[in-house]
Formats: sequence, structure tokens, C-alpha cells
Amino acid sequence: MAGKKVLIVYAHQEPRSFNGALKDVAVAELSRQGCGVTVSDLYALNFEPRATGKDIIGSLSNPGFFNYGMETHEAYKKRTLSSDIIEEQKKLQEADLVIFQFPLYWFSVPAVLKGWMDRVLCQGFAFDFPGSYDNGLLKGKLAILSLTTAGTASMYSKTGVNGDFRYFLWPLQHGTLHFCGFKVLAPQISFGPEMASEEERKKMVASWAQRLKTLWEEEPIHCSPPWYFGQ
Amino acid sequence: MAGKKVLIVYAHQEPRSFNGALKDVAVAELSRQGCGVTVSDLYALNFEPRATGKDIIGSLSNPGFFNYGMETHEAYKKRTLSSDIIEEQKKLQEADLVIFQFPLYWFSVPAVLKGWMDRVLCQGFAFDFPGSYDNGLLKGKLAILSLTTAGTASMYSKTGVNGDFRYFLWPLQHGTLHFCGFKVLAPQISFGPEMASEEERKKMVASWAQRLKTLWEEEPIHCSPPWYFGQ
Repeated sequence: MAGKKVLIVYAHQEPRSFNGALKDVAVAELSRQGCGVTVSDLYALNFEPRATGKDIIGSLSNPGFFNYGMETHEAYKKRTLSSDIIEEQKKLQEADLVIFQFPLYWFSVPAVLKGWMDRVLCQGFAFDFPGSYDNGLLKGKLAILSLTTAGTASMYSKTGVNGDFRYFLWPLQHGTLHFCGFKVLAPQISFGPEMASEEERKKMVASWAQRLKTLWEEEPIHCSPPWYFGQ
Repeated sequence: MAGKKVLIVYAHQEPRSFNGALKDVAVAELSRQGCGVTVSDLYALNFEPRATGKDIIGSLSNPGFFNYGMETHEAYKKRTLSSDIIEEQKKLQEADLVIFQFPLYWFSVPAVLKGWMDRVLCQGFAFDFPGSYDNGLLKGKLAILSLTTAGTASMYSKTGVNGDFRYFLWPLQHGTLHFCGFKVLAPQISFGPEMASEEERKKMVASWAQRLKTLWEEEPIHCSPPWYFGQ
């Protein structure tokens, strides 16, 4: 799929980590295909996660009563969002596919990546009313979560202590990505790399590289409650 | 319940916001009962959400390959975690009840509060192996999420666009609080205060204050898949 643009939003502190390896093979394989690949390395950028008044340059619409959602919506329209947010919005706007690469922290994304979602996906840019879910403003783009867990696959099953892995995907895939109009590809979950052997870890990395070869042919999931919670 | 200690972890930027009002009535009502109430006002503290090497004072166990979970576990045991984390752990250790007061951001907590969870609830302090779920290290404590939404209650129902509100509670109540041993009280959800009239907003605040009068008599929820996803 030469010419396609891919944004990898990457949240791991250690370049030589397993998450780093998954990011690196994705960059290599997608570049080999002729895609344009951009990486937002959130820890390396020291990306700001907190949603504050600093996200608006210049004066607020209502300085006496700070409403983050309203102020960033206005600032988006007036082009007065802070430069780090604008930079990420540009990358996202150009992307055909967004890969989120992260270790699962508390059944969710690490705070630095949550902050990317809170700040970059603002009203007017990523969604509006109307303009959510199938009509979200990022319609036409694909997204995929590629994540690692501490626990094993059996711990993340319907009868495991952590429940089915699909349960924790709901806020991220449906509540965030689908809400903004993305079509969501099935997640790439690498279970328990820290407990695995070096050989098993290599297999997991190779399996991700292999999947990326035909990722563009995949059908998105049907992102609604039955996918997550069964009947 | 005079003598009980309560920690309110509060994540809103605007003191005069609806979230601020819910926090204020909780402080007032619980103080009236004779409880000791502490508030961690995360934006006012400019609380750091990013999980980085700065969370460990002095030398790392493995400086050549940074592993956040391992390093913070070691640092907890050696008492070399950064002072902001130690401060929050002390407040949490003393608390009988923890109230999380926040606006829902992307079906979850704002990044500043996610960072509080990522950094404060470290291995050795909040959980261990063994030492999770019903045996989590914060066993004996109660927790409750008090949150506001942008959408209405019907939007957060089984047939609504956002799905049942219990779906998005799973990672927070089960994957985080229950995992650390908390008993979880039913959430206090104030739906759509921004779309409500001033009178309706006052009713929502009063209803929270009223509930707090008898909160100590409540039975925790049974925090397992049926509560969230039905049969």
C-alpha cells in the first residue's frame, strides 16, 4: 500500500523494550511497503498529559470560569490551540492508519497516552455534535491498538480473573476511536512478554510483522456491544 | 462515622465547576459527620501524570534497560520513590474511604487522574503477587467513583449510543480498584450537568450530599462481570 500514511502513537519509556521492538518492526515493515510512517514517541517528546488552560494561547473565552471542552473547541476554531496539540492534529489529519503501541496500565493506556487522547481529540477536530461515531470527524481513517499485558491470555479470558480482554477495550475502541469516526481493526495483543522466553517474544514480534503485511486487506471489527460482551 | 478518614482525589481545573461543587459538599457533609477529610486537588498540585525514571530517587536497579514496574517496586521497598508519590501513598494508607471526583474524559478518568493511578498504586504498596483482587494490599478500604458525564442517562443505557454506563466502569472499578483490594460502592453518576437547568444541577448536588449521610451503611457492589455485563 505504497503512499499510505501511518501514524504510530508510541508510549514506552525504554527504546529497547518489547514495546519498542513492536514499534520498530511496524516502522520497518510499513516503510518497506512504501508507506509514509511517522512516530509520536510520547515519552521522548515529554508530551504533556494534563488538560489545562495552557492548551489555549492568548485569552480565554470565559476566563472567569474555565471549561476545558468549550475553551479548546473555541481555540480549535480560532487556531489558538498550543503548538504541541496542533502538531499532533496535523499528523493525525494526514494519517490513513493510526497504530497505538503501549503497555496496558490499569486495563487502559498509560497516562501520557490518555493525555494525548484528552488533548488532541478535541471538539471541532475529532468530533462534533452532530459528528460522532459513524459520522465522527476522523471518518475514513483506520485505527488499531497494539498492546502488551503483564498477565497471560488465560487471565484475560471470560473465566479468568481479569475477565475477557474485550471488556477493557470498550472505552478505548468504542468510546474513543469509534466515537471519533475511526474504523477499528482487531487489536494486536501480546500477552505477558515479560514472562515469556526470548524465543516466544521473538515469535510475538514476528507475528505482528507478519500481520502488518496484509493489514490493509483486513475488515474492521463491528464496533458495538456484541463484539465486546457477547449476546 | 466520626473518626473515619476520607481521601478525595479530585480532578477538575475550575474550583467553581459542578465537579468542584460535588467535592465541596462531600467535604462539608463528611466533616460534619466528624470524619477527617483530605483532598488531593490534582490540577492545583500540578500532579505529574507521566510514569518515568524521575519517579525513582537515586540510582536505578537496571539503568541500562528501564522497566517502570520493576523499578518502582524496588524503589517502594527501598523508600526511594519520589516525594509526590510517597505523599499520596501516605494519604491513601490512612484513608478508610477514597472518593474519586472527576468529569468523564473518553469513557475514563482525565489523564491527570490516570497518572495518579499509574504512579501511586505501585507494586508492593497497592498490590503484589500474591496480593491482588480480594487480597489486594489496600484491602479493608472503600472506594467510590463520583463522576459527571457530558451525555444523558439514556445515552449511557444498554440501547443508547454510548452503551450501558457499567461497561466503561470495568477498567476503573474492577481492573484498578478491586485489583488493589478496595471494596467498591455503587458509583455516583451525575449525568449531563452542562445540559441541565440550574435547578436540576442543585438537585444533583443535593442528592450526592444526601447519599453521603448514609454512605457508611451501604453494601459494596459485587464487583464481577455480571454486575457490569449482565448474564
